[in-house]
Formats: sequence, structure tokens, C-alpha cells
Amino acid sequence: MGSGNNTERVKTGIDGLDELIEGGLTKNTVTLISGPPGSGKTIFCNQFLYKGIEEGDTCLFLTLDKKVDSIIAQAKKIGFNFQSAIEKGQIKFLFLNINKKLVYDDMTKEILSGEYNRVVLDSITPLSEMPIYVKNMEISNDSNFIDPADFSPDSSTSPVRLHLHYIMNVLDTAKCTSVITSELPLGSSDLSRDGISEFLVDGIILLKLDSTMDRRKLSVMKMRSTKHSLKPQDIKIGEGGIQLI
Amino acid sequence: MGSGNNTERVKTGIDGLDELIEGGLTKNTVTLISGPPGSGKTIFCNQFLYKGIEEGDTCLFLTLDKKVDSIIAQAKKIGFNFQSAIEKGQIKFLFLNINKKLVYDDMTKEILSGEYNRVVLDSITPLSEMPIYVKNMEISNDSNFIDPADFSPDSSTSPVRLHLHYIMNVLDTAKCTSVITSELPLGSSDLSRDGISEFLVDGIILLKLDSTMDRRKLSVMKMRSTKHSLKPQDIKIGEGGIQLI
Amino acid sequence: MGSGNNTERVKTGIDGLDELIEGGLTKNTVTLISGPPGSGKTIFCNQFLYKGIEEGDTCLFLTLDKKVDSIIAQAKKIGFNFQSAIEKGQIKFLFLNINKKLVYDDMTKEILSGEYNRVVLDSITPLSEMPIYVKNMEISNDSNFIDPADFSPDSSTSPVRLHLHYIMNVLDTAKCTSVITSELPLGSSDLSRDGISEFLVDGIILLKLDSTMDRRKLSVMKMRSTKHSLKPQDIKIGEGGIQLI
Amino acid sequence: MGSGNNTERVKTGIDGLDELIEGGLTKNTVTLISGPPGSGKTIFCNQFLYKGIEEGDTCLFLTLDKKVDSIIAQAKKIGFNFQSAIEKGQIKFLFLNINKKLVYDDMTKEILSGEYNRVVLDSITPLSEMPIYVKNMEISNDSNFIDPADFSPDSSTSPVRLHLHYIMNVLDTAKCTSVITSELPLGSSDLSRDGISEFLVDGIILLKLDSTMDRRKLSVMKMRSTKHSLKPQDIKIGEGGIQLI
Amino acid sequence: MGSGNNTERVKTGIDGLDELIEGGLTKNTVTLISGPPGSGKTIFCNQFLYKGIEEGDTCLFLTLDKKVDSIIAQAKKIGFNFQSAIEKGQIKFLFLNINKKLVYDDMTKEILSGEYNRVVLDSITPLSEMPIYVKNMEISNDSNFIDPADFSPDSSTSPVRLHLHYIMNVLDTAKCTSVITSELPLGSSDLSRDGISEFLVDGIILLKLDSTMDRRKLSVMKMRSTKHSLKPQDIKIGEGGIQLI
Amino acid sequence: MGSGNNTERVKTGIDGLDELIEGGLTKNTVTLISGPPGSGKTIFCNQFLYKGIEEGDTCLFLTLDKKVDSIIAQAKKIGFNFQSAIEKGQIKFLFLNINKKLVYDDMTKEILSGEYNRVVLDSITPLSEMPIYVKNMEISNDSNFIDPADFSPDSSTSPVRLHLHYIMNVLDTAKCTSVITSELPLGSSDLSRDGISEFLVDGIILLKLDSTMDRRKLSVMKMRSTKHSLKPQDIKIGEGGIQLI
Repeated sequence: MGSGNNTERVKTGIDGLDELIEGGLTKNTVTLISGPPGSGKTIFCNQFLYKGIEEGDTCLFLTLDKKVDSIIAQAKKIGFNFQSAIEKGQIKFLFLNINKKLVYDDMTKEILSGEYNRVVLDSITPLSEMPIYVKNMEISNDSNFIDPADFSPDSSTSPVRLHLHYIMNVLDTAKCTSVITSELPLGSSDLSRDGISEFLVDGIILLKLDSTMDRRKLSVMKMRSTKHSLKPQDIKIGEGGIQLI
Repeated sequence: MGSGNNTERVKTGIDGLDELIEGGLTKNTVTLISGPPGSGKTIFCNQFLYKGIEEGDTCLFLTLDKKVDSIIAQAKKIGFNFQSAIEKGQIKFLFLNINKKLVYDDMTKEILSGEYNRVVLDSITPLSEMPIYVKNMEISNDSNFIDPADFSPDSSTSPVRLHLHYIMNVLDTAKCTSVITSELPLGSSDLSRDGISEFLVDGIILLKLDSTMDRRKLSVMKMRSTKHSLKPQDIKIGEGGIQLI
Repeated sequence: MGSGNNTERVKTGIDGLDELIEGGLTKNTVTLISGPPGSGKTIFCNQFLYKGIEEGDTCLFLTLDKKVDSIIAQAKKIGFNFQSAIEKGQIKFLFLNINKKLVYDDMTKEILSGEYNRVVLDSITPLSEMPIYVKNMEISNDSNFIDPADFSPDSSTSPVRLHLHYIMNVLDTAKCTSVITSELPLGSSDLSRDGISEFLVDGIILLKLDSTMDRRKLSVMKMRSTKHSLKPQDIKIGEGGIQLI
Repeated sequence: MGSGNNTERVKTGIDGLDELIEGGLTKNTVTLISGPPGSGKTIFCNQFLYKGIEEGDTCLFLTLDKKVDSIIAQAKKIGFNFQSAIEKGQIKFLFLNINKKLVYDDMTKEILSGEYNRVVLDSITPLSEMPIYVKNMEISNDSNFIDPADFSPDSSTSPVRLHLHYIMNVLDTAKCTSVITSELPLGSSDLSRDGISEFLVDGIILLKLDSTMDRRKLSVMKMRSTKHSLKPQDIKIGEGGIQLI
Repeated sequence: MGSGNNTERVKTGIDGLDELIEGGLTKNTVTLISGPPGSGKTIFCNQFLYKGIEEGDTCLFLTLDKKVDSIIAQAKKIGFNFQSAIEKGQIKFLFLNINKKLVYDDMTKEILSGEYNRVVLDSITPLSEMPIYVKNMEISNDSNFIDPADFSPDSSTSPVRLHLHYIMNVLDTAKCTSVITSELPLGSSDLSRDGISEFLVDGIILLKLDSTMDRRKLSVMKMRSTKHSLKPQDIKIGEGGIQLI
Repeated sequence: MGSGNNTERVKTGIDGLDELIEGGLTKNTVTLISGPPGSGKTIFCNQFLYKGIEEGDTCLFLTLDKKVDSIIAQAKKIGFNFQSAIEKGQIKFLFLNINKKLVYDDMTKEILSGEYNRVVLDSITPLSEMPIYVKNMEISNDSNFIDPADFSPDSSTSPVRLHLHYIMNVLDTAKCTSVITSELPLGSSDLSRDGISEFLVDGIILLKLDSTMDRRKLSVMKMRSTKHSLKPQDIKIGEGGIQLI
């Protein structure tokens, strides 16, 4: 697989990574970025969108962190200045408030209406942990897309899986290339905090810290339709973001 | 056991594997494929069905993933082009929506009515995790087949085991050779996510990743009526699917 | 202990094992066979009953697996042809349906009425996991045997222990030599899945797999009134069943 | 501590053990024997009572196992023939039925009325796991002994601790030297199954199996008012019971 | 820190320990002694109070163990004869019955009314595990001391933390130097059984057993306002109690 | 990143640490200090505030420990004499009573009204564990700050995450540089007790004890907009507080 096919690729903008995965993420797929705090998940997201801006893509950054200004400022500091793109409407930063009933409505409307090429959801963890199921989440009556029955009040599956299915369906419907992050506890050997989302995505990139050795690693654990090594790659994070070394 | 008997075998299509298990899976049995994300479970399923197409079998791919087109496209990319077989009606890809009340009806009707030789269920995990028990799942009044009383509302066993029993019964009734997959967390030392299905199947094949060494392994952990090694086999995944090396 | 006593022994039929345990299992006791899937539990059971047939014993195989024909066929394939014994009524294979309210009645009546010398229950795990307590399980009014008060609706002990106590009482009342199996998860260091039955039986035999080394082991962990080694014994499984090597 | 004091000692009858603990268990205390199945817990109990018979003590063996005859037969086989002592009334074997509401009444009356010097309770585990609290367990109105208020229906402590407190109080009130056993799972690193009783007793003896090395160990983990080594001692079990080697 | 300050110290009476912690426990603080059964927790308590008697302090020993006479006898055996001090009223041993509704009242009244210099609570574990919250525990209306509102029925914190807060408040209000013990399971790597009390106390001393090496250790894990080593110290327990070696 | 930018820095006052993180904590961010008991969390807090006093900042120390006088006394003993600053109103020590319904009101009003430059919350653990959600916590109607809807009674997220979100929002609204502590169990490999707060803060500093080697370590695990090593640094705690060695 890999050689000679014509799958469209979307560059991550990370030096060395795109080469490892046949040129970039597969277009219109969902990639999961998992890692403990401080491993560079948000920097990965910013780098991915900044590359999108360079390539003329329309971008959306969905964050569960209220301090949107602070995210933009931190991105700028590391070399990703989104200011003019924001002004031109080429990128939008949107805060999702998990305490609001309509958080899914907000998210879904934005993703589906915006005609975005690249979407980031940072992070999926608080959404997946919402304990009560939100009813009546109708998106479209077009049964080729998202089926409203998927979320009927009679649904009997666990909330975490339902939340994740819903989000995946929205991203799939929007025909965008997406990156979602998962908050991994420091010592975890899992691929996501919820233990389910790694089975629903098309690609998985794991970011790890080795505190004792002061080293950072990036591993491509899964990438559908792509030939790749599983080997952890040494990375450094600095001016210009993440870089394979 | 093994030598000199006349058990019918169903080829998996995986180079090297069929030789290890006396020619293939035992006809009309259920084999469990367990592994973490990215270990090749879905590729195994596609390869098994593609071999079936080659051998003139009628095939069914039941998936819990809504993106059926994407599964078919990925299969094609790796060398399994199902297009003409789909058109000829030799294979069917069916999405099972776990959010629908009638998911079991859909599954059961298709399996029992289709006269399939090979059936894939990818994956069994979301079905087994359905928390609420679905009543009145009558399939047949022929007590030689599936007993409706198996699922009486008075049933007192745990839902996971009941779900698994039900699925096994349907597959057994259909007289097909089946492959079911289970989503194993990355660091797990179990043989399935639910911890029960490995005791209900006739065969178990475990797929593992060793990220540090960039190696993939396949182990035959159980294969009824078959003499086999337990040893993990090195595999590679590429053009043409899984291959023992 | 052991030397010079006149305890009656019941041969397992496994080459090498009977020598290790002073000639066989102690007559009219219960032995637990624990092991992961593929470790040979069902083969052990068949071998034990096949030896019984050879010795003129009347035998009962209670299975929680609906596919009774398949069990008989697999036994035949490995060298244990029960066909004529079934026809002569020397052995009976009985499917216990855990979804039926009267599963205990079925089991108890068969065991107590059949005057069996050897009884196999494969496996005890689904029975022990039945969450709701079944009332009114009267067996006999003879208080020397099983006390109906043991299972009064006011009982306050945990269901698992109650289920196990009930089964042990039935087997003890029947005056047969019994083998029961427990489904052990692959990585478990326990002696049974429920963590209780190993304290209720007279003997425990543990079957283990070492996948990396492609080795199988059998350990006698407990055998009342018998002098035995605890050492894991290498075994192979093939034509003729389990054999110590 | 230890040297030169006049604490009365009660011999266990185990060669080598009494020497390690200043001559035996302290009179009128409770000692916990913990170990996995097959480690020799019941043999320890029988050996302790058989020594009592030799020394003219009145003995009580409380068992949760219905097969009392079988326990006596097994004891005889290993060299402890209780028959004449039973006939003389010097020892009593009593089955405690945990399914009966009045199990505590039976136990308490026997212990308190019998003027026993040595009492064995084999095992404490099923009693401690009784989930529903039994009300109105009045033993004595003498507040110097057991306070009925200890078990008032308003009690708010966890059932396990309450059950254990109650049993300890009964044994303490009876002024006997007691041995109680706890069912330890094979791989456990705890000192009892409940995790509480080791804090309530005066002495703890741990029995362990090393299957790979075919070795058995006995460790004195605690013995109030006694100077002792913590070191695991090699033991063998055979004719005459447990022996330090 | 430590050198040159004028913090008042309260001697533990343990040879070698007081030297390690600048002369003793800080006056009017609470120190937690954690350890598995048999590690010497109760001996530590007795030694601490016996030193108090020597220095003319008024002492209180609160125990959850009904056998108060036995505790006093064991203390005497190891060299701490409290008899005359009891008669002079210099020390009081009080049994706290966790099954009584008013256990907290009993404890609080005794601590607050007794003008004790040294208080032992052996152990805090059963108190912290009381599942139902006891209402209306008013101690004082002086808001400088313990606020009755701390335990209003509307309180929403977990019972364990509330129980511990309450006990700490009482000890703090009484202006005494206290030692409390926590029952640590044998293999635990925690500092208390509840996992909370180590964060509420001023000092933590950990007692450990190494059975294989037959060694005992004492580690000062925390001691506010005191410079100390974290290193585990070898100890022996014998005539005269605990001693550093 | 880091070099050449103009991010304002707030000195921690810890010798060697400020050099490691480009001069100090980033102004107006939240830093988490996690560690087991005795690792120096409270000393870190005092040192941070004492440096603030030196630099003319207005400071707030929020504590869940009732013994505020004792905290101040301990700080003085180690070299941080807050007395004159307290008298001048440059620093305030406030006890937060988690048993009071209005604990959040008290905290929020103080933080928002006080115009503090530096705020310490020691520790966040009891607040995050409050099981019942407190309704109607309106702070401001200015939607640019904290949205009252964040805490609507219809909220469906888990209480721990909600509590943490609320606290982070308050600290962010107050435009202060904050340090919060988390109580880490001794053997934990996590970055906070709740497993969530490390994903919500801007910086994480981990304090660890190595008892066997009698060593203490400080690791900067995350520090947004700052280039730093992950390497654990040896520290000592003594007169003058924490110092890198």
C-alpha cells in the first residue's frame, strides 16, 4: 500500500512528519493526537492550521478552553501568527462551553456551515465525559449524512461512545481534514483517555514525554491507507513548533 | 489431532497463516480477531472476504462504522477491489447502527436470509457494551435453531454475556464461517475487550504492535480441532494485505 | 499422607498425571480445571469422561455451549469417539441454557437422578455470574443431603458464593467424581474467574499457555488427601488428548 | 520482650513453629492463618486441635464447609484421628450455614456455652462477606462482655468490619485460644481477603505456595507479646501434618 | 530551618528518633504513624505515652479495640507499666465504640475536657470509614475554635474527609501533642489507608516490615518545621519498645 | 521559543528555578504544584508569596487548613516573616471552609475584589472532590468574564471538572499570577490527584521524594510559552525555603 496511489494528502506542517506518512494526513479523515500535558498537543494543532493558512485552506479551531486570546497569543509566540488570517476570515477560533446545553448545536452548526478544509477539536475529552445524554440533536434530514435516529432518546449505548460517534459523524459529514486531541494521564499506556476514540479515527499520533531523559517522542500508531513506521521519533519543540530530529 | 482428518477448511487468504492452521479456518466456525487500533484487524477481515470472492463464496461485511464507502475504498487501496463483486451481489457491506433499537433485527435478518458463506462482524465491541437489554428478539420458532426463550425478559444474566451468546447463536445458526473483531486497548494482556467472547469462539487470532521495535505480530491463541503453534509470528502489512514473514 | 492409604482413585486418563496424584482424582470429590481459552480445559473434560467410558462408568457432560454436536465432533477428532457410548446411554451430553429460569432445576434433576459416576460441568463461570437469585430451589427434604433452607429468599450472602455453594452441594449429594472448569482471563494470576470456587473444591488443576515459548503447562495446585508436587508440568495436546512430557 | 515473662502458651503442635514463637500461641488470643487454596490452612487447624486433644483441651471446629465427615476423614488420613475424641465429647465439629439467618446465633451459643479451650473458625471469609446486616444479635446483658449496642440497627459502619468485630468479641468473651482462617487469592500480597481482620487479631501466620519451585512457606507476620522472626520458613506437608524444615 | 529556633519539642521516647527530628515531635501538632499489622504502631503509641508519664504529662489513649486490659498488659510486658499512672489519674485508656451513635461525642468530650498533654488515637481507620454522616455534632459555640457549621447536614464533601477534618479540629482545639495511627495494607505504597489523612497532619512516620530480610524500618516522611532525613532507619522491637539501630 | 520575546515574568523566589523558566512564571497564568505530603508544596507557596511581598505585589493565600496561625508561624520559621506585610495589608491569609455552602462565594469575592497580583490556593484537592454541585454561583453579568451560564443547574458535566473549570475561570478573571497545589498520593505517577487539573493550567511543577536515597526533586513538566528542560532537578529544603542544587 502507499506507493503509486493517488490519495490526496494534507500537510501537517511538521518537518519530517509529512515525509513519514506519504506526504501528510489523508484528506477528509480524522486524526487523533494523544498525549500528556505539556507534550505539545495544542502546538501540533496550531502548526497544522498554520500550514493550512499557508496553503489557502479555511480553518476552524474548536477549543474547550475559555481563554481563546491566550491560545492565539501563545501560537504567535511560537511563530504562528494568525492575526491577519483571523481578520480575513480564513481562520476562526471558537470556544465550546461544555456547561451549555447547546454545546453540540454550536459545534455542529459551525463545522457544517463553515465549509472548512481543516478543523481542530482541542480536546475531545471533556465532551466525551458529559454524563447526561443530550436529546434531539437533529442535524440534517438527509439520511445519507447524519441520521437523527442515531441519537434518539431510546438509545441504549454508553454515553461516551455515543458522544464520540456523534462527533465523528459531524466531522465526516463536513468533508474536512480534522485533528482531535485526547488528554492522556502521564503514566497511561492507552491511546486515548476514553479508550474508545482510538478505534473510531483514521489516524493516531502519540506524543510522549520522558522527563528523566528530557526527551520528547512522536509515534504514528495508526494511519489508514498509509505505510508508516511505528517507531517513536525524537522531536523538539521550539520556535516554529514541533520538529523531528 | 489434525493429521489425516477431513475437517473442511476455509482459507484466510493470508500468506503463511493458512499453512499454520492446517489449511485455514474450520468451516462454519467463529474466529475472533483481537488487537489494538492499527494492528490490522479490518485488513484481516477484508483479506478473508476477498479470498472468499476469489473462491466463489457469498460474503457479508457487517460494520459498526458508518463510513462504509471509506472502508471499501481503503480495501481497494491495499489491493482488495470489491467493486465488481458488490455489483454482482457476491458481497454486501452493511452498516449496523447501534443507536437503533432494531440493530439486532437488521443483523439477524441479513445473516440468516442471505445464505452467506463468509461473514465478518467488525467489531463486536460496541454491540457487547449495549447496556440495556433488547426484549422480544425472536428469530425462529424452530427450536433446533435459536431458542426465543434464550432472551426472555426474565433473563438474569449480565447483558454483555447475553449479547455475545445471542450473536454467537445467530452465526452458528447461519452455517457460515465467521470472523469477528474485538477492540483491544493498547496495553491490554487480555484476548478481547469484553473478557468473555474469547471463551465462546472456536478460534482466536491475536494481532499485536511493538512500537519501539516497529514490529507487528500475529499469534494463533486457539483453534479448535487444529494443531497449531502458539508462537507469535512476525507479519508485515502492505500491498496485498497481511503477510507472514 | 498418601502412602499406604486406601482412598479410592478415579483415573483422569491423562498420561503422566494419574501417576503424579497417587493414581487419579479422589473418588466422589470435585476438581476444578482452570485455564485461559485454548489451554485444553474442554479436552481435559472429554479425556476424563472417555476414560470413564473405558472403565464402565456412567458419565454426564454438562455444557453451557449450545453447540453440543460440535463438542462431540471435536472430541471424536482428537480421538474420543463417544458415539456408541451415547447410543448405549453410558454418557449424556446436556446443554444448560443460562437464559432459562429453570436452568438449576434441569441441572440438579439430571445430576441427582442419573446415578452418574463421573460428571463434568464446562464451565461454571456463566452460572456463577447469574446476577439475580433464583428462589425456591428445593431439591430434597432429606436434611442429610441438601438443605432447602440453604437457598431461602432471605439469604443475604453474595449471589456468586451462593451459586457456587449450591452447585457444590448438588455434586456432593450425587456421590459422583466431578470436574468443573473455570474461564480464566489470559493474564490472570488467580485460580478461578470468580475467585471463590478454588476454596470450595477438593482439587485444583491449572492449565497455562506460554505463547512466546509455544509451551503448555499443567500444575496441580491442590489435591486433598494427596501428596503431589506443585511444579508446572510440560504438556502437549494432540491425537489422544493431553499428555505430560 | 519475650524473655523472662510468664505469658501462658498454647502449643500449635507444628514441629519447629512453637520454638519460633516462645512456645506457642499466647493463651486466650486470636491468631489468623491466611493463605491461598492448597497452602495448608485446614491442616494447620486440625493439627492445632489435635495437639489440644493430646493436652486434654476441649476443642471446637467451626466450618463453613457442609462436608464435615469429609473434613474428619481427611484429618484422619494425614494422621489426626479425632474419632474417639468426638465420641468422648472432647471435640465438636460444627457446620455453620451462612444461608441461615441464625448463623451467628448458632456460632455464638456454641462458643460461649461450650467452655472450649481451643476454637477454630475455618474460614472467616464467607461470614465477613455477608452483605446484609443481621439485627438483634444480643448475647449478654453484661456490659463487661459483649455490648448489645455494638450491633444496633442504627450502626453506620461497613458490614465487613462489623462482622469481624462481632466475631472477635465473641471469641474474646469465650476466653479460648482461637485460630481463624482467611481465603487469600493466589497472587495476593495482602494478609487477609477482607483487608481488615489482620488488624483485629493478636497473631498472623501466612502460608504461601511457590509453584515454580514446588516450595511451601510459613511466615509469622505478627504475634503480640512475642519476639519472633518475620522470615518465611520452609515447610513440608505430609504424614503428621505441617513441619518446618 | 530547624537550627537556632525555639520550637518546643515533645520527646517520643524512642532511642535515636528524637535526635533525628530536632529533639522530638513539635508541641501541639498531630503526627500520623502508618504501618501494616505487626509493624509496631501500638508499641510506638505506648512508648510515646510512657515517655509522657515520665515527663509528668497527662495522657490519653483512645483505642478502637475493646480489649483495653489486654493493651495495658501488652504494654507492661514490653516494659511500659502504666498501672500506677492509671491509678494516679495521669493516664486514661478509653475504648471508642464505633457502633455507638455518640462515639464522636465521647471522644470529643474526653479530649476537650481532660486537659491532656499527649493524646493517642489508635487507629483512625475505622472512624474514617464510617459511611453515614453523624449530624448535630456541636462542640462549642466559640467560633474561634470548632465551627458547628463545619458539620451541617447540608455538607456536601465526602464522609472520609469530613471525619478526618473533624478529628483534626478536635485535636487542634485541645492544644495537645497527638499521635494517630493508620492501618496500612501490607503491600501498600500509600502513607495512610484513607489516602487523605497524610495531607492533614503535621508529621508522618512510616513503619515497614521486610519479611524476607526479617528487617523493620522507620521513615520520617514529613515533619513540619523540622529538618530531617527521609531515609528509612533500621529499628528493632523488644524489651523497652522500639529502638533505632 | 522563549528567546527574544517580551512575555512578562513573575519570579518564584526559588534560587535556580527562575533561571530554568526564562525568568519566572508567565504573568497572569495558573501554575500547578503537585506532590506528596512532605514534598514542599506549602513551602513553595510561601516562598512565591514572600518574593511577591519583596517586589511590592499584593498577595492572597487561600488555605483549606483551618490552622492559619500555624501556617504563618511555620513560614516564619523557615525564613518568611509575613507579619509586617499582614499588618500593612499587603498579604491576606484566608481559610476556606469546604463545609460551608458559600465557600465558593467567599473565595470568588476575595479573589475578584482584592486586586491581588499573586494568589495561592493550597490545595485544590478538597474543592475538586466536593460531590454535590453548588447552584446559582453568579459572579458577574459581564459575559466577557465569567459566564453565569457556565454553572447552570442543568449542567451535565462531572462535578470535578466543573469545580476546576470554575476555579480556573475565577483566577483568569482576576488577572493575577496564581499557584495552586494538588495532593498527590505517595506512589502516584499522575500529575494531579484529580487527573484533570493538569490539563487546565498553564504550568506544572512536580515535587517528588525519594525516601531511600533521601533526595528531593523538582521537575517542570509544562510551562506554556516557555522553553524548559523536563529533567528532574535536585532540590534541598531548609532555611530560606526551596533551593536547586
